[in-house]
Amino acid sequence: MRESPYPMVSVDHALASILRHVAPLPAAAVLLPDALGLVLAEDLRAPADQPPFPASIVDGFALRVADGAAPRRLAGEQMAGVVAGIVVEPGAAVRITTGAPIPPGADAVVMVERADELDGLVTLHWGQELRPGLGIRPMGADVLAGQQVLAAGQALGPAELGMAASLGLSSVPAHRRPRVGVFSTGDELMPPDQPLGPGQIYDSNRPSLLAAVAQAGGQPIDLGIVRDRPGELEQALAAGLAAADLLVTSGGVSMGELDLLKPLLAGWGQVHFGRVRMKPGKPLTFATLPARQTDGAIDPGQPARPIFALPGNPVSALVTFHLFVRPAIRRMAGHAAVSLPQVIATLGQPFPLDPERPEFHRVTLRRAEGRFVARSTGSQASSRLLSASGADGLLVLEQGEGVAPAGAERPVLLLDDAWLAA
Amino acid sequence: MRESPYPMVSVDHALASILRHVAPLPAAAVLLPDALGLVLAEDLRAPADQPPFPASIVDGFALRVADGAAPRRLAGEQMAGVVAGIVVEPGAAVRITTGAPIPPGADAVVMVERADELDGLVTLHWGQELRPGLGIRPMGADVLAGQQVLAAGQALGPAELGMAASLGLSSVPAHRRPRVGVFSTGDELMPPDQPLGPGQIYDSNRPSLLAAVAQAGGQPIDLGIVRDRPGELEQALAAGLAAADLLVTSGGVSMGELDLLKPLLAGWGQVHFGRVRMKPGKPLTFATLPARQTDGAIDPGQPARPIFALPGNPVSALVTFHLFVRPAIRRMAGHAAVSLPQVIATLGQPFPLDPERPEFHRVTLRRAEGRFVARSTGSQASSRLLSASGADGLLVLEQGEGVAPAGAERPVLLLDDAWLAA
Repeated sequence: MRESPYPMVSVDHALASILRHVAPLPAAAVLLPDALGLVLAEDLRAPADQPPFPASIVDGFALRVADGAAPRRLAGEQMAGVVAGIVVEPGAAVRITTGAPIPPGADAVVMVERADELDGLVTLHWGQELRPGLGIRPMGADVLAGQQVLAAGQALGPAELGMAASLGLSSVPAHRRPRVGVFSTGDELMPPDQPLGPGQIYDSNRPSLLAAVAQAGGQPIDLGIVRDRPGELEQALAAGLAAADLLVTSGGVSMGELDLLKPLLAGWGQVHFGRVRMKPGKPLTFATLPARQTDGAIDPGQPARPIFALPGNPVSALVTFHLFVRPAIRRMAGHAAVSLPQVIATLGQPFPLDPERPEFHRVTLRRAEGRFVARSTGSQASSRLLSASGADGLLVLEQGEGVAPAGAERPVLLLDDAWLAA
Repeated sequence: MRESPYPMVSVDHALASILRHVAPLPAAAVLLPDALGLVLAEDLRAPADQPPFPASIVDGFALRVADGAAPRRLAGEQMAGVVAGIVVEPGAAVRITTGAPIPPGADAVVMVERADELDGLVTLHWGQELRPGLGIRPMGADVLAGQQVLAAGQALGPAELGMAASLGLSSVPAHRRPRVGVFSTGDELMPPDQPLGPGQIYDSNRPSLLAAVAQAGGQPIDLGIVRDRPGELEQALAAGLAAADLLVTSGGVSMGELDLLKPLLAGWGQVHFGRVRMKPGKPLTFATLPARQTDGAIDPGQPARPIFALPGNPVSALVTFHLFVRPAIRRMAGHAAVSLPQVIATLGQPFPLDPERPEFHRVTLRRAEGRFVARSTGSQASSRLLSASGADGLLVLEQGEGVAPAGAERPVLLLDDAWLAA
């Protein structure tokens, strides 16, 4: 019996090993339109008060409280963004728009709905209380100069990017988006839009994994289909080690004679594990290899590149991507939370257990009375992409005998965006 | 007192009005690398069986069950993707790799770990049960020719794109990504990277809303800052109506003298509502305007363009975006679920109620014992972006007197990606 030279490691061991070998990428100044979803690499402090001047909260009339309820003489107009140079003298009022600076002399703004202006005379509606500061947003009311407004490690969404823009920034210091190279291996794999010959199938892993890379926040790089010939594999690997921060391959990691990838990884770098106790995805292999320059020479100035050799079956490839590659990409992008979010679900049917390996069973989730109910997507053959298509999550079934009965509770790892549709 | 000509409508009324006026965009053939997150516009059926031939599930030896436990003569090698032309005669075995077609004559595959080959003789390990079909994935086992594999309306994630690729497709019929034009209005707004003059602030809404558009699945188009002058606004609007499927503006919709936008919208098209009973975001305005050609002429061949005039305060702009613009973008993209997902959270502190309007209070969410606990992000001034930055959701507080006490339960609308970090 041929033994795999790689010991079988647990899922937890595998993930820990991966996270030991990947680190956040260096920070760079990233233009705001390119920074959505990236992680801030430095704290940001406000260089000035926000607002930088006392501003009107409403459209109305800036006036002096001390003048009481008496009608005011309209002395001018203060619009936002305009230097009007008006001073509000006793007995006067100035028409003002939302966001406009409060003119000197005024200490309150009465909103336009509560006053009337006729022939240059402003009359306040009866019974309203005037007090200094009414209708005024003081200088620094929202943010004080020197205040920290965003912290290193924060993910940049629309609000955070707006915050950065409000400081006058056109770019932010953020961890670079990881460039992730993806290739498929196998002589049977064909590109789309052409008829298949005998024994051939279309390459579905590359499009699927490239999309998964983008969804995880990486910059996908398509490295094509690599044939099962030694020279070709070495060439593709060298090109990937020059072009990408992280590499993902699929196929060529089981026990066959033509599995050239594992020996190559072991020869060029270090294989950290080559088998994982899980279903599907057992042949998953993780290695780090020295970075290369574009001429193929080793690049000592760059950190070693993590490379994931995923199984060729499309479901195995996607499941191992979600469990192991996604955390590596997110760690490189600087995220603190790297694994798929987990919920507890009630089993909507019995699920058979595998006596040898924990299983990540593709399920749909339905919400009922504030709980999640998990149902299988059907046959879990690792070649059957239909079991992953439309799936909301990966039900985590422990290794064991018999079944997990309907009604039992188990963790489910939520696939990206599943929650949004639930 | 100046009355707004627009009646105050409820949040529900506003959303229903919007959804009446937007429809899914037409389908187009979208290349797979561009289709992530789009919605499939037609059912997809498999043109052929998957696999298209009986295939080996493992690396091993293809053989005949009828030969029993006896050693076999090694008669050749069948690799994936190769036409070997071998027939497995009685007493013979053929070395085979995962995914390779089963050679004629063979009816089972014994995995390489359960057999030994020496000097052309294949010996099976003792005690294993041979049965026809062992180690073989029959033709059509994963998908049958003619079977529907993806349904119109399904969102395209990595698994669905892999499924499409497995059919040999390089593109899919999907609803076009909505092009969303964004401009800011206001004389006080300045672009980044330059010092502010008196009365000026940086434009934060445009970067923030452009990011929100991308996050919602739209294609953002930056239409710049438009000054508070009639000609400029008309020019920007005409350009936007030619370039985008949907327009988003911020500023210029409150009651001030310089609010030129609402009359322009009413003159060029139909304003469906101009005030919404909500806090923040009351001045939100929604209209539909005829599409324009690039020369500015009305384009009768295109549907009317929805346009959202959001309030200028940055928090009001973002909250109304999430509640109203995001659903419009998602509806145009073909999604069935258009609103932010909702969870029930326990209040981690008392929240004061507003007697006049329901409030969408920015909160952080923490998970404790399987429940969400909501806490305020602090001062909710609609100018204070810090209240939105780092927020996980919008707590929905009903209009009312007094407070919603700590420990009470209320709905929270989850902001995109908040769940992933929770």
